[in-house]
Amino acid sequence: MRMVDVIDVKRNGGELTEEQIRFFVDGYTAGDIPDYQASALLMAIWFNGMAAEETRLLTQAMLESGDRLDLSDIPGVKVDKHSTGGVGDKVSIPLAPLVASLGIPVPMISGRGLGHTGGTLDKLEAIPGYTVELDEGRFKEQLREVGCVIAGATGDIAPADRRIYALRDVTDTVDSIPLIAGSIMSKKIASGTDALVMDVKTGAGAFMREEEDAVALARALVDIAHGSGMEAVAVISDMNQPLGRKIGNALEIEESVELLRGEGPADLLELVLAIGSQMVVMAGVADTPEEARPLLEAKIADGSALERFRAMVEAQGGDGSVVDDFTVMPQAAYQFDVPAPRSGVVASMAADELGIASMMLGGGRATKDDELDYAVGLVLDKKVGDPVEEGESLLTIHSNREDVANVVDLVLDNIRIADAAEPVELVHRMVL
Amino acid sequence: MRMVDVIDVKRNGGELTEEQIRFFVDGYTAGDIPDYQASALLMAIWFNGMAAEETRLLTQAMLESGDRLDLSDIPGVKVDKHSTGGVGDKVSIPLAPLVASLGIPVPMISGRGLGHTGGTLDKLEAIPGYTVELDEGRFKEQLREVGCVIAGATGDIAPADRRIYALRDVTDTVDSIPLIAGSIMSKKIASGTDALVMDVKTGAGAFMREEEDAVALARALVDIAHGSGMEAVAVISDMNQPLGRKIGNALEIEESVELLRGEGPADLLELVLAIGSQMVVMAGVADTPEEARPLLEAKIADGSALERFRAMVEAQGGDGSVVDDFTVMPQAAYQFDVPAPRSGVVASMAADELGIASMMLGGGRATKDDELDYAVGLVLDKKVGDPVEEGESLLTIHSNREDVANVVDLVLDNIRIADAAEPVELVHRMVL
Repeated sequence: MRMVDVIDVKRNGGELTEEQIRFFVDGYTAGDIPDYQASALLMAIWFNGMAAEETRLLTQAMLESGDRLDLSDIPGVKVDKHSTGGVGDKVSIPLAPLVASLGIPVPMISGRGLGHTGGTLDKLEAIPGYTVELDEGRFKEQLREVGCVIAGATGDIAPADRRIYALRDVTDTVDSIPLIAGSIMSKKIASGTDALVMDVKTGAGAFMREEEDAVALARALVDIAHGSGMEAVAVISDMNQPLGRKIGNALEIEESVELLRGEGPADLLELVLAIGSQMVVMAGVADTPEEARPLLEAKIADGSALERFRAMVEAQGGDGSVVDDFTVMPQAAYQFDVPAPRSGVVASMAADELGIASMMLGGGRATKDDELDYAVGLVLDKKVGDPVEEGESLLTIHSNREDVANVVDLVLDNIRIADAAEPVELVHRMVL
Repeated sequence: MRMVDVIDVKRNGGELTEEQIRFFVDGYTAGDIPDYQASALLMAIWFNGMAAEETRLLTQAMLESGDRLDLSDIPGVKVDKHSTGGVGDKVSIPLAPLVASLGIPVPMISGRGLGHTGGTLDKLEAIPGYTVELDEGRFKEQLREVGCVIAGATGDIAPADRRIYALRDVTDTVDSIPLIAGSIMSKKIASGTDALVMDVKTGAGAFMREEEDAVALARALVDIAHGSGMEAVAVISDMNQPLGRKIGNALEIEESVELLRGEGPADLLELVLAIGSQMVVMAGVADTPEEARPLLEAKIADGSALERFRAMVEAQGGDGSVVDDFTVMPQAAYQFDVPAPRSGVVASMAADELGIASMMLGGGRATKDDELDYAVGLVLDKKVGDPVEEGESLLTIHSNREDVANVVDLVLDNIRIADAAEPVELVHRMVL
């Protein structure tokens, strides 16, 4: 087989065979196929897409390039959740212990943040001592004993994806639905979960700005999962404005704890319950999401979800007292209110630009090697739909430097105050 | 400027600026832009094409990456001809001395063959002693004294094209009209000619199988020439069956000489006169092609075109007696007739497959490093439209090996005999 012939099939709009897909994935991972041929194929895929079966085969080949976590000896239906990433999206952090408090094992393999979106592992590392690096034995032991884990990959997961992703990044082939879907699902299938709820974000702060693209990605993700024998559903949720009120690493741990105390912001709670109730149904603990929701609410109300979070943090070496005292985490030296320039109603808060503002403060990475400042970020005093008086604070900047003029300019440029606002629909739809 | 942003413009269907095109061409030629980004851009160009102005700028940037031949001190309008390549296409060889015999300087920079099409330089090297490697001084001296030259490039012509072409070959981006046009024209402009007639082939043996693609390529070529201040026209000509009756290196020299003796096959003569009369008009020696044609016919009839060919061969170190005695060239050890399997009319002779048959005999190169056998090839005893009796010879194989069963099978598979044949239209149209 010649790589140029494989490229030719895809370039001309044909479907690649399993043999051709494996030839590419295995050959590229092994270094036998040069970057320049791989990038030509990736660009042809960008233009001509992939059929559902091709995408499944691509995912399978990338999956089989690396290690898999075997959780079959742990009793119960293992349920995981994946988000395509958004600003202020800390759903995983309260969700895992909440669902686990119903006796459902939640093995969550998470990632780090880059650009305007934060990463779950980065946020958890704001808790002193918390380690995200667990080996397979410790991962499984914690899953068995605590019921939930949020950590990085335990082995060499999908090295093919790692190589292909690095090439996509420099050849303008990142935003291709089959390539995104293959990248996500090869890693998720490798993590050994039985069922998966995906939160596919859409809007200004999401990778998929248009809802139809988000739905197409969700469809591809669910199809791959089903083709691999995994139960899966996807939620399409709004990412025009940030989720919750807090953006930043330690700040998002605070808000996660607040949610588990029953004091979380309404939108974050709504999404946690929407996703959590799907997980509960998949685990067989309730028949419908409507039945599942009060079960979850009860675990927040009686404090057991919060205690499960403390147990998880402590099992991973972290300071469990964080659930009582946020000051065990790094605190910013300065807080600055950003006053509203006029009275009215908050009509929009561009999630991506607010994410960039947090990154500029040191809360996110512009490049892979940037060091994080866990303390900094933004606290939104108003959200879309809230009335505001001129001079009242729109948000509070948590900073470790005194000069935040550029951040103030950026956030003011990206918060629109008008006479009225369109209502926000948080969960747009489900893809089954 | 970042290469990934240049790729993004083209991928999204935009037009590249002069600055972006130069960034790519200069950066890639210098080795600053990696192959994998260049191949992603080439594939995006394959999909989205280039506007006429972009193609002109690409050509200009590739042209300026290397040397140019300056012929401005040679009096007269210098006229050249370029063919996109076909099987049995030896037009350049009799054409250059024929046009030169009217006092028109013909500086022809030619190339070698690869795959099923032969190369003009390879054919001329079948003449003992003929050298295609001339330096600029000798090239210009011969042009001044003999009036025509057929040689390889005299300097380092368009190194950018050389690098880009090598990458296109392995990334399935060869058949892109702007890339083909840029590749051809960067070299042709560098050769210093004032006017150019292009022969764009269409049909089974041509790179552009469909006439509309041939016309689009011709349009692009002529537009680039005009944009660079060069006079140019293109002829769209048929390449469904081979041109003339002889295919192979020494065999095509024979047929060229036969044509100059007034004994050439009708289709080859027709195309030589059609292209030649355009060259004569461009040179200002006649006002219309109709006026030019009898001038050329007279130079064949009085033997002066043949003598001009002899002078060119001798000026380039070749054995001029070839015009009287073909046996100074290598001769094949065996000749085998291929009899017609039925009676009827020859309905088609697939040019590409007959070209491959000649290549299999050793007359062409499958890869760049293959050695050529100048003696071998095919002589067509019948052409499309000719009646044939069962058992009568369709063609004669000239071979240096005794076993040609695979060649016989291939040619018989690709010659169709029917009850009637569609008439062949040799010159489809002109693009001005």
